Amino acid sequence: MGMEIMCFDLEGVFVPEIWINVAERTGIEALRLTTRDEPDYDRLMNYRLGILDEHGLGIEDIQRVIAELRPLPGAPEFLDWARSNFPVVILSDTFYDFAAPLMAQLGHPALFAHNLTIDERGRIAGYELRMPHHKMASVKVFQSLNFSVFACGDSYNDTAMLLAADRGFLFRPPPNVVEEFPQLPVTHSYEELRQHLVEASSRTLV
Amino acid sequence: MGMEIMCFDLEGVFVPEIWINVAERTGIEALRLTTRDEPDYDRLMNYRLGILDEHGLGIEDIQRVIAELRPLPGAPEFLDWARSNFPVVILSDTFYDFAAPLMAQLGHPALFAHNLTIDERGRIAGYELRMPHHKMASVKVFQSLNFSVFACGDSYNDTAMLLAADRGFLFRPPPNVVEEFPQLPVTHSYEELRQHLVEASSRTLV
Repeated sequence: MGMEIMCFDLEGVFVPEIWINVAERTGIEALRLTTRDEPDYDRLMNYRLGILDEHGLGIEDIQRVIAELRPLPGAPEFLDWARSNFPVVILSDTFYDFAAPLMAQLGHPALFAHNLTIDERGRIAGYELRMPHHKMASVKVFQSLNFSVFACGDSYNDTAMLLAADRGFLFRPPPNVVEEFPQLPVTHSYEELRQHLVEASSRTLV
Repeated sequence: MGMEIMCFDLEGVFVPEIWINVAERTGIEALRLTTRDEPDYDRLMNYRLGILDEHGLGIEDIQRVIAELRPLPGAPEFLDWARSNFPVVILSDTFYDFAAPLMAQLGHPALFAHNLTIDERGRIAGYELRMPHHKMASVKVFQSLNFSVFACGDSYNDTAMLLAADRGFLFRPPPNVVEEFPQLPVTHSYEELRQHLVEASSRTLV
């Protein structure tokens, strides 16, 4: 009987995309820029932080916006089901200070993410990636602890994690990811994902 | 600003000792034997499983007994506080099937533990350690993911984890452990532990 751990991406799987929603709710169109527009992540982040500065938006303003967001419909219930069957770790490239209001709504699952540098006035002075490619690295260290790793994510930056996992599942992925990674099963709902996990697990799930 | 993760032992920190309570509630005195009486863990476990067999007790009987246990007073509230400040992982040498009823009462934090082998009639046929010394190994892999690790446990078998952690805290330890590990701060209540964590963290905790 294998011992299994479940790793989930956060945005797109349990909660909406954070930057896009901050852009929408603040009305700052420039914050819509993503890695598709600027592939250099460091340049993209510094650009975003510069825009927040220009608009005089500090961490508390952004957290207020993010606190208005809600988990995706059905996400808390599905996550509760997952946690009653597996140790669950959320692997995300967001920042702890951004995710906090959403994690509270999800009942505080364990989150591995990155840090923002906040100055004493609440300005977001910079960011600090805990480590590059930490999603895939986390999967590998869990395997080194003799876990079978099940992983689920929605986008291109999850695919290394999904391929490293013992079983990887795409959740509502964009068409280009489906096309490029035909070996990864595609799921469109929590129920469909649940059925895949029931089938993949060596145990009888509750 | 460091990125921190919090590792907790389970029994003695958040929930009562499971075997001792199973012994008490089933009235089977022989189940009170601990590693102090039989230092060879494999012999101890096989002895315990043999006794359960003799009494015709399967996993469902034991789970019914364990489901009557409650977390230690204040444990759920303290754990909720910890989870709103850190990613939290429980590192325990218990078994998933034993811990399940207690984990539900704690809101399903991520648990790294071991497995029981249950046969089709519900008999506990054996056990499978996921890996030896997994508590210390987990601390080290979290450090390899660039986390500062805070750890807390109550007993001798936690000390390797506590010493490997960036900051280790004893919680209501027996006198011999206090004496042998004077370098580990001793805490006697969740409030005292909370204050140590507030002081140890590089961040302002909520």
